[in-house]
Amino acid sequence: MSARVLCRLFVSARLAKDASVLADAGQARYLGSVLRARPADRVCLFNGQDGDWLADIVHLDRQRVELRALSCLRPQPDTGIPDVWLLFAPVKKDGTDMIVQKATELGASVLWPVLTSRTNSQRVNVERLRATAIEAAEQCERSTVPDMRMPERLEPLLAGWEHTRTLYVADETGRGDPVATVLAREASGPAAFLTGPEGGFDPRETELLHQAPFVRPVSLGPRILRAETAAMASLTCWQAINGDWSHPLIRPY
Amino acid sequence: MSARVLCRLFVSARLAKDASVLADAGQARYLGSVLRARPADRVCLFNGQDGDWLADIVHLDRQRVELRALSCLRPQPDTGIPDVWLLFAPVKKDGTDMIVQKATELGASVLWPVLTSRTNSQRVNVERLRATAIEAAEQCERSTVPDMRMPERLEPLLAGWEHTRTLYVADETGRGDPVATVLAREASGPAAFLTGPEGGFDPRETELLHQAPFVRPVSLGPRILRAETAAMASLTCWQAINGDWSHPLIRPY
Repeated sequence: MSARVLCRLFVSARLAKDASVLADAGQARYLGSVLRARPADRVCLFNGQDGDWLADIVHLDRQRVELRALSCLRPQPDTGIPDVWLLFAPVKKDGTDMIVQKATELGASVLWPVLTSRTNSQRVNVERLRATAIEAAEQCERSTVPDMRMPERLEPLLAGWEHTRTLYVADETGRGDPVATVLAREASGPAAFLTGPEGGFDPRETELLHQAPFVRPVSLGPRILRAETAAMASLTCWQAINGDWSHPLIRPY
Repeated sequence: MSARVLCRLFVSARLAKDASVLADAGQARYLGSVLRARPADRVCLFNGQDGDWLADIVHLDRQRVELRALSCLRPQPDTGIPDVWLLFAPVKKDGTDMIVQKATELGASVLWPVLTSRTNSQRVNVERLRATAIEAAEQCERSTVPDMRMPERLEPLLAGWEHTRTLYVADETGRGDPVATVLAREASGPAAFLTGPEGGFDPRETELLHQAPFVRPVSLGPRILRAETAAMASLTCWQAINGDWSHPLIRPY
């Protein structure tokens, strides 16, 4: 028997003292084959609503792992995750995976693939991206997992946009003001970032974006950033200036 | 004959009108086998000193590509790259490659692997990392390539540190102030960031860092960032607040 916490797992079940929780097939494989877990080993569970819970393994075989919640390690934060979305044109597989993983670490609340005229990968495997986001949330100690939306084309997405949410667009044409200047100016309110595909937005899309009253083009400096770098840099700037990196830290544990 | 510029290549030769330049073996392979270049095709060359030059292919076979500089596309920027270094504890191969690639895009002038007590990969292939940095510089239109240093252990590195350069350390212990606050306070002067290995610095290293008068711990928010995310986020914040993202953009081309 060991008091060591093997890993942190996202579950859909509600968590409370003595709640019984079944791991899904992937988690059962991970616990059994990768971590070589045994009955009585301990893990940390979270579900995005009830905080982090210490749990022990009650039963474990190849198909099925049953866990039991023991005690709350930290309550669900009152404030939740900051209200910032990332809309991104999918790029190559590795780049898109990186966008999803890093945006989860960087605290995006919504991840939304956007299909543009230069988007190569029209087929986006949302289930795989959701799994990537969950794994990143488990590892970075996020209290929630991001809401992974279904891909949508840019034009209808802009047409249906809720105007109270500012949409910052990483702009390669040099028309945007420096990102820190724009963010400091727009300090509060719901925010979203949009990053383009390899090769950028086409001229019609660029015009459409510039005409939208809720769009703020921002400049990410003189070098040409890859799509995934632009996504990470955008969220980083927002968190540092307006998000949950901008006030002194109180560590939950 | 085509006027299309096939790619941008870093070369060590000086560049001037009609200068003859030999591509190295890797570049020759890339031009011949990947891009299927032919004589008279055009490329862009830079060497970190003489600006970007349009060049054409004078001769091309499997072993040898000879290029000729035709005209200057943009002069070398007067100001150069901002004076910010990234010191990083190497992580797994992919993570280290990502740190080097992204730090190059994000404009680090010096890249310096630091060996810590929890650094797994004591053997760092500096030549491979240098090649990764050059490739990233070619693609992001940097006017220089970063100076890739030889790995050094943390303790002697701190002992020999030039005190006029502020060393910002991504601090997981919660002792640092928010990164944007610290950077706004320390607005000018040479800067460096240090990111730790997987598992973080050991307690002795943490103490050593906290005692150094040139060290400023910074907080990167409430989530636990992977080493490569911390490296990217640090450089992003510096560029946005104090670096070359902080003033309006004048595109070189």
